[in-house]
Amino acid sequence: MATEIERIVDGSVTTPKGFVAGATYVGLKTYGEAPLDLGLLMSETPAVVAGTFTTSKVRSASVVLSERRASSLEARGVVANSGCANACVGDQGMKDAIEMTSLAAAKLGVSPEEVLACSTGIIGVELPMGLIRSGIDKIVVSAEGGHEFARSILTTDHNTKEYTVSFLVDGVRVHIAGCTKGAGMIHPNMATMLCFLTTDATVEPALLSQALKEAVDSTFNMISVEGDTSTNDTVLLFANGAAGAPKIDSDKASGETFRRALFEVCRELAKAIVRGGEGATKLIEVVVEGAQSVSDARLAARSVASSVLVKTAIYGNDPNWGRIMMALGKSGAEMQESSMALYINDICIMEDGLPISYFKDAVIANMNGPEIKLVAKLNIGEESATAWGCDMSEAFVTFNSAYTT
Amino acid sequence: MATEIERIVDGSVTTPKGFVAGATYVGLKTYGEAPLDLGLLMSETPAVVAGTFTTSKVRSASVVLSERRASSLEARGVVANSGCANACVGDQGMKDAIEMTSLAAAKLGVSPEEVLACSTGIIGVELPMGLIRSGIDKIVVSAEGGHEFARSILTTDHNTKEYTVSFLVDGVRVHIAGCTKGAGMIHPNMATMLCFLTTDATVEPALLSQALKEAVDSTFNMISVEGDTSTNDTVLLFANGAAGAPKIDSDKASGETFRRALFEVCRELAKAIVRGGEGATKLIEVVVEGAQSVSDARLAARSVASSVLVKTAIYGNDPNWGRIMMALGKSGAEMQESSMALYINDICIMEDGLPISYFKDAVIANMNGPEIKLVAKLNIGEESATAWGCDMSEAFVTFNSAYTT
Repeated sequence: MATEIERIVDGSVTTPKGFVAGATYVGLKTYGEAPLDLGLLMSETPAVVAGTFTTSKVRSASVVLSERRASSLEARGVVANSGCANACVGDQGMKDAIEMTSLAAAKLGVSPEEVLACSTGIIGVELPMGLIRSGIDKIVVSAEGGHEFARSILTTDHNTKEYTVSFLVDGVRVHIAGCTKGAGMIHPNMATMLCFLTTDATVEPALLSQALKEAVDSTFNMISVEGDTSTNDTVLLFANGAAGAPKIDSDKASGETFRRALFEVCRELAKAIVRGGEGATKLIEVVVEGAQSVSDARLAARSVASSVLVKTAIYGNDPNWGRIMMALGKSGAEMQESSMALYINDICIMEDGLPISYFKDAVIANMNGPEIKLVAKLNIGEESATAWGCDMSEAFVTFNSAYTT
Repeated sequence: MATEIERIVDGSVTTPKGFVAGATYVGLKTYGEAPLDLGLLMSETPAVVAGTFTTSKVRSASVVLSERRASSLEARGVVANSGCANACVGDQGMKDAIEMTSLAAAKLGVSPEEVLACSTGIIGVELPMGLIRSGIDKIVVSAEGGHEFARSILTTDHNTKEYTVSFLVDGVRVHIAGCTKGAGMIHPNMATMLCFLTTDATVEPALLSQALKEAVDSTFNMISVEGDTSTNDTVLLFANGAAGAPKIDSDKASGETFRRALFEVCRELAKAIVRGGEGATKLIEVVVEGAQSVSDARLAARSVASSVLVKTAIYGNDPNWGRIMMALGKSGAEMQESSMALYINDICIMEDGLPISYFKDAVIANMNGPEIKLVAKLNIGEESATAWGCDMSEAFVTFNSAYTT
């Protein structure tokens, strides 16, 4: 059986064979305990790479450079810094991104064109290249460095977010691992999502890109902390084939297993981001079923997960279903009020477009946990989608309105 | 000179000639001092009507009925209730909306088809028709009833929002007046915007509809309190010609004056809604200039005015321009970072895509007033747009997360 996907609890991006990583502190950020702010992740052999990047018109130079280099479908690794987004700094941004990859390449003994760059942190401030130049040599990369790398990309996250799985391809064990940073904010900038994925499977490049796009569309593109899109969002997936397993392509059963495994890793990392949203006390999972199309289901689910009024109601354990209907209605997805049903944590509170009697105190008590599941059944089609959000508390406002510049 | 538009400070929707209004309390809502919750507004003679209605797929039956009846372009008046949205109540919603207009028509001595209905308040609860049936007769309509009517549509608004102007058409004075309710929330429902406009000018029906649509697109459709769209949003404009002035049509200079006057009324009412947003301490005006198209300028301006991270930064007097760039970038409008400039209250803080030195304490001190103006110059075209939002405070979250159901 090649299809069983097993989680490796203590895995990291260096659990897949042939990947090494490491990190150090060079002084780009000034907060956190024992902070790390510059990390390297590398495949010991050339790897196939796939990436997805922010769709914002205002993009970090690091994003622009990585997207360009990833288009070759081959790369060796990535240098990542936290504390500075390398965004809105004019031409200097690209110069610095290129120099940062050149420094990393020299240290790793590879070509600069094979190294990508990712940055997260304050916007509008140039990368302190002096610190990076003098500090990068302190990094020691090794097969044990995955957790350190995961720490080096954090900004105001409370903890690292890592997820690793393995499965068999024709009897040979392969791994997919990932780490991500969450929706924290620092100084005058916004949440910037970064995610790094590694696999030692041998994957046909077209499948790698397609599987990543599909997984990101269903996971990272379905989360919302406060509805704002970063200048720096980047997801990178490196596949180096070091496990020595048969090549995975779309036509094989292993292709399907690979997709499922990659989806699982992305979904768990996406949920970890939302769970760690600034000021968040609850994870909200929104399932829309019975939509006429997948895009309608996604629109509707994201609209609910992103609604400020839904988020504040959930924070108050308030089964305020009028706000859920409002968010569904404004989404633009096709729906008919008279066909719809709503569930909060599996308790039906509306059916056929009409409120039904329910024991309100039971629902309120039921909402007192760390995860809330909202299900909207549109009952006009066969398609469904899931989105994730977090609630919104006073602490969110306090954190994001504090003097920071 | 027919083009001078004068404000009438103490005006109301009954300032234009031939309009009467009144209101009473029938028990639909339980809060507020000396509350009124059922209002009538009527033209003494048949009037031309134009309306704009929520685009949500989940709509109050009152909206559905009013849109249908307004499509005839003729109406006599409207009955409005606060405290109950008449939304998400199944077929009963339409029965009740029709009955409410029939009760109003009988009282006013007109045909039910000439009366529209508007509702705002809790979602998912049927209109208490018994209260409306027994209470509607208490309403006394008169030419002095405009302010009472303005009070009857409020939910958690702190005060009424009214604006009136007059101008001359070929030497005859005509008026445009309006009242609106703001972005309050009560019980398990969301902000529901209603606006009622009256004029005693004689206006060609096609011009009336077109001028209203244009004004709404530039005013009510450019405000955001928390990014959520109501099931009940409605703007109605009645023109009864009672001033006896020459007919206004698109070809005449008076057509242009009418548009400008209507725009001014809508803009001031829209700003009043935002200023009174729940928990709001500041009005934010966002101007985007130099866009390639009006739709791009509007997209970009609304994105900034709606951004939760911009709103929380402004609340904290934080000149956090990275967040403004983020909101512009994610809007989807065309822009080039290297051409852009940003201003906070006329102080340039970014030019050619680069931060410029500014005296930060001066900007922070400057932001300490009740109105903040953000200007983004894209410098790639000739079009511009303005949007309005309010800041977001801890009080907003507290208010919207309180147990309400």
